[in-house]
Amino acid sequence: MSESWSFLDTVEPNFRPLVVVELAKGTKEETREWFTKRIVDKKANGGAQLLVKPLGTEDGEENIYLVGASHLRLLLGAETVGLVKECNDNSMRTFTYSSRKTFKGFADDNHNFLTIAECQYIIKHELENLRAKDEKMIPGYPQAKLYPGKSIVRRLLTNGILVQIFPLHDREELKKLRHSWYGRVKVGYQPLDEIRCYFGETIALYFGFLEYFTFALIPMAVIGIPYYVFAWEDYDKYVMFATFNLLWSTVILEVWKRICAIMTYRWGTLLMKRQFEEPRPGFHGVLGINPITGKEEPVYSSIKRQIRIYLVSLPFVCLCLYFSLYVMMIYFDLEQWALDYHEENESTFSSLMLFVPSIIYAVVIEIMNRIYRYAAEFLTSWENHRLESSYQNHLILKVLVFNFLNCFASLFYIAFVLFDMKLLRQSLATLLITSQIINQFAESVFPYWLQKRHKKRMKKRVCSMKTDTDLSLVEQVNLEKEMGTYFGTFDDYLELFLQFGYVSLFSCVYPLAAVFAVLNNITEIYSDALKMCRVYKRPFSEPTANIGVWQLAFETMSVISVVTNCILIGMSPQVNALFPDSKMDLMLTVALVEHLLLAIKFIMAFVIPDKPRDIQIKLAKLEFESLEALKQQQMKLAAESLKE
Amino acid sequence: MSESWSFLDTVEPNFRPLVVVELAKGTKEETREWFTKRIVDKKANGGAQLLVKPLGTEDGEENIYLVGASHLRLLLGAETVGLVKECNDNSMRTFTYSSRKTFKGFADDNHNFLTIAECQYIIKHELENLRAKDEKMIPGYPQAKLYPGKSIVRRLLTNGILVQIFPLHDREELKKLRHSWYGRVKVGYQPLDEIRCYFGETIALYFGFLEYFTFALIPMAVIGIPYYVFAWEDYDKYVMFATFNLLWSTVILEVWKRICAIMTYRWGTLLMKRQFEEPRPGFHGVLGINPITGKEEPVYSSIKRQIRIYLVSLPFVCLCLYFSLYVMMIYFDLEQWALDYHEENESTFSSLMLFVPSIIYAVVIEIMNRIYRYAAEFLTSWENHRLESSYQNHLILKVLVFNFLNCFASLFYIAFVLFDMKLLRQSLATLLITSQIINQFAESVFPYWLQKRHKKRMKKRVCSMKTDTDLSLVEQVNLEKEMGTYFGTFDDYLELFLQFGYVSLFSCVYPLAAVFAVLNNITEIYSDALKMCRVYKRPFSEPTANIGVWQLAFETMSVISVVTNCILIGMSPQVNALFPDSKMDLMLTVALVEHLLLAIKFIMAFVIPDKPRDIQIKLAKLEFESLEALKQQQMKLAAESLKE
Repeated sequence: MSESWSFLDTVEPNFRPLVVVELAKGTKEETREWFTKRIVDKKANGGAQLLVKPLGTEDGEENIYLVGASHLRLLLGAETVGLVKECNDNSMRTFTYSSRKTFKGFADDNHNFLTIAECQYIIKHELENLRAKDEKMIPGYPQAKLYPGKSIVRRLLTNGILVQIFPLHDREELKKLRHSWYGRVKVGYQPLDEIRCYFGETIALYFGFLEYFTFALIPMAVIGIPYYVFAWEDYDKYVMFATFNLLWSTVILEVWKRICAIMTYRWGTLLMKRQFEEPRPGFHGVLGINPITGKEEPVYSSIKRQIRIYLVSLPFVCLCLYFSLYVMMIYFDLEQWALDYHEENESTFSSLMLFVPSIIYAVVIEIMNRIYRYAAEFLTSWENHRLESSYQNHLILKVLVFNFLNCFASLFYIAFVLFDMKLLRQSLATLLITSQIINQFAESVFPYWLQKRHKKRMKKRVCSMKTDTDLSLVEQVNLEKEMGTYFGTFDDYLELFLQFGYVSLFSCVYPLAAVFAVLNNITEIYSDALKMCRVYKRPFSEPTANIGVWQLAFETMSVISVVTNCILIGMSPQVNALFPDSKMDLMLTVALVEHLLLAIKFIMAFVIPDKPRDIQIKLAKLEFESLEALKQQQMKLAAESLKE
Repeated sequence: MSESWSFLDTVEPNFRPLVVVELAKGTKEETREWFTKRIVDKKANGGAQLLVKPLGTEDGEENIYLVGASHLRLLLGAETVGLVKECNDNSMRTFTYSSRKTFKGFADDNHNFLTIAECQYIIKHELENLRAKDEKMIPGYPQAKLYPGKSIVRRLLTNGILVQIFPLHDREELKKLRHSWYGRVKVGYQPLDEIRCYFGETIALYFGFLEYFTFALIPMAVIGIPYYVFAWEDYDKYVMFATFNLLWSTVILEVWKRICAIMTYRWGTLLMKRQFEEPRPGFHGVLGINPITGKEEPVYSSIKRQIRIYLVSLPFVCLCLYFSLYVMMIYFDLEQWALDYHEENESTFSSLMLFVPSIIYAVVIEIMNRIYRYAAEFLTSWENHRLESSYQNHLILKVLVFNFLNCFASLFYIAFVLFDMKLLRQSLATLLITSQIINQFAESVFPYWLQKRHKKRMKKRVCSMKTDTDLSLVEQVNLEKEMGTYFGTFDDYLELFLQFGYVSLFSCVYPLAAVFAVLNNITEIYSDALKMCRVYKRPFSEPTANIGVWQLAFETMSVISVVTNCILIGMSPQVNALFPDSKMDLMLTVALVEHLLLAIKFIMAFVIPDKPRDIQIKLAKLEFESLEALKQQQMKLAAESLKE
């Protein structure tokens, strides 16, 4: 069968375009030929053994290619990337081609055994693992150096010859998904399994977390409403609410780990073995020997990286944090000045002037956030991390700290320096609600509108073209390649993280925050779904087993909120009235309660198992089986040796 | 070769007795024959294929057996237990018999390839894995029920037919070890690798930790001495000392993880795969199906166990803690009463009376500790844990909490209720020094003296016997079987843990504690070494990769000590003098510093990698190799499938 594959023979009857490869306009003929040849070439010759079909464009230049693969090739690829699938006996096992018959739903003619997201992930993996053999450079581009084992796609990307690789939408499937996700007005859970099949585990986990988090906030919201309605200001009721919130936030974060384990076990990613990570595209260094693989690749001294992190990035971040605090102090001065001005000469102008500092501050914060984001990306990239995961972690940490300070520093200042609870409540409400409205608008509604407009224009243009290939496919590809790229779940998680901060950090001051968060998240689910389905290019699926560093970020936030809430309660006049004689006793009590709550939190996190019992048993069973298999093998060997 | 093995033919020329099996006196002939038959029987017949030789005793009754194994059998056993050894290319790999030639120091006639401790561990493992086939009971003992797969040795042990199994000392090796360990007066490190070869990893790790901990305390001790000599009472000096101590304790605990990783990598246990754990001997339940193995074994509902833990054990522990506090309060009342009495009618009698409460309290604490230990063992055993490791963890937790309270509650009371720093310093010194002296005496010197006496008596008795077998071996076995059993490193670690508490919890009050701890630990190394080599039966080696739950215990102690030290400093008159006007400011400052220190501690623990970079690279290399091997295998399969 592999004999019949060749460059010219790619238009098979069952060719199903899965991934689009866009080369730069004007890429040399020689390069295009060499690259497509490498994609279809046999594995034995160092190719990827995939199918390629050029997409006809108006000017006849072939710079866009559709990549697909035969069913068999995809199954073998599934084995290479180590996909885990459900077997006929309901256990989850790593898929191997030789044991394919034992898997649930497998049949030689069932092309739905692998989800589309999995197929596209496999193709991406195979393309990225297309490695240089003895080529010293990309043919036609002497400046694009290659060395044996270098990923060709990454070199093409860094040299700008390859514009982008993206997976194609499946219009049928997408329609079905849209319908069950947000197409009808209904009360119920999101179709997480379908989302996972279409968009992959990372995105399904984000939506799962968003949904779970919304449900988890409901008890806080329900308890918070009467505080607002009846204007309860009693000490005991506030303390009870805050205590409930603090312990509840630990419980929900621990329970999420369990739910996450259940989902990712079902999806197979919990069991998926970590693959050896290749250097990220931007990584550079002197050509040397990787001590782990023993192969030639760029190496960069870890000490140099540490120096860059601790002597440049860390001071820079601290400086930015200081600057942000400085700007905040200016804002408070301005605010005070506007207030004084208003009091002195009361007029319409002066009352309008009252809003000016807030507006300026909001704009400045937004600008600082954006500048800082670029700086953080530049710095993290300059730190030259070898792995994408470590790059991501360092970037997330930098952005997280700065955003945390920008969002909450003014609230901390109002609470713990100005001691103005009324202003705190007011600022909190303003910040929370405006940030929610702006986010929803900026994130989905506006891009959706842009996209709609663009689509109409495109449709007109495509319709006027005359080509013999399937019109709607060309149209689709041209539409999708112009869509914005979804840069991962980072900003979505960040939004949730800051929201969690608004809800938990000052929960005893503004119990209504949870209500707004719940309302926002319900619409957020819909607007994010719209964003994924309509606004952005389809992203590649990324198998993941958990929400990674965000779990830690949320847990840290919940620890900080214990401290802030205890101080806030300690400062409240009701509590102060309970200790009329001695401030010392009050402070000691507050400190004691705080330490007790922290201790309970840590004990709870320790006692609640991260995985439910049945998942633990299933994992133990798999481990036991592999140990037994090993032992059987060894016993056989041993028996043979003893007989000698 | 296996053909020539039989029950009668066990006295091979190269038979080397490794393990002693002692059956109860008066064990039926039938049982003894069956048991020894099973030990020597071929693997294929369900035997252990080891060598057995009865030890002749005075009354001709054969109830003690020596167990050994051929070199080949041990090598196959090493493969079964999954030993990790160093290869010729300096990498560590799991030993397999088929790849034996690639391992460093392997030769068919080199009987030192496996250490004695490893050989004995293999024999223990093989004996414990001797499982019932179709026997319904132990022959001769109808009450000792068996079912297919039940460990025979464990059933024999629980029914009292088997008295004990213990590894024999190797007098030559022991002499060498003793000489290099504590035989000569020298300054230097302990021979940890030799200790590990003789006693196994658990004990070597304990001595490694003891040594490391002693060295780590030296900076604290050195800085602490001038405080005593010059009677520094300046605020800034004390704060600096305490801050140094708190951060230092985090550093030493993190660095220990790295050192531990280096050692256990060299010893192979870091890479050793966890074997599937069998139920512990005391575990009982209704015969059912283990959901993990699918085999028949006693099962016990996890919910029942949880109920026992949370509804019985937890309240009981809390009650004991309360009782211990109650006793402490009585002690303080008595102390006060004695003081009053002495002041009223001053006499020799009354001044003697001053010591009575302390003595009574010390005795009561000791009694309570012992009773509680029994109760904790009983309760944990009653909780019916399936695994030895989970039994140990629950027992350690129970004993730890109680011992912590017993040791430190009175100090906490003096410090934070009585606010008497002078008394605190005095009590701390008394408690620390007396506990050290008592421990050293009770642990080694006294048992050593007992052992010496016993040995003399035994020597006389054995010499009067007339047997034809090797006299010194019989003598040795009879001596060793009467020696005390070493119940693991629990008490040794507990001692260190409490010492760490004395040093760190109140370090800013009594800087000299570290000096005493260092002095004690230097002698402790010698007395523990004496204990291991001379006082106790040789223990079986247990491969471990770290100090387990103790790491967590020490880290928790170091967190608690941040809190106590901050409060102590905040209460000191020097610090109070700095804030003459406002107690509030003082308390806020103390709370701020405390939270800052805790945050720094957590960040440090997070930033310092648990394994040194070269170990990380070596581990990654091994993982990469196994992934590559898997991929090669799959590629071969894939190529074959595509050709079809």
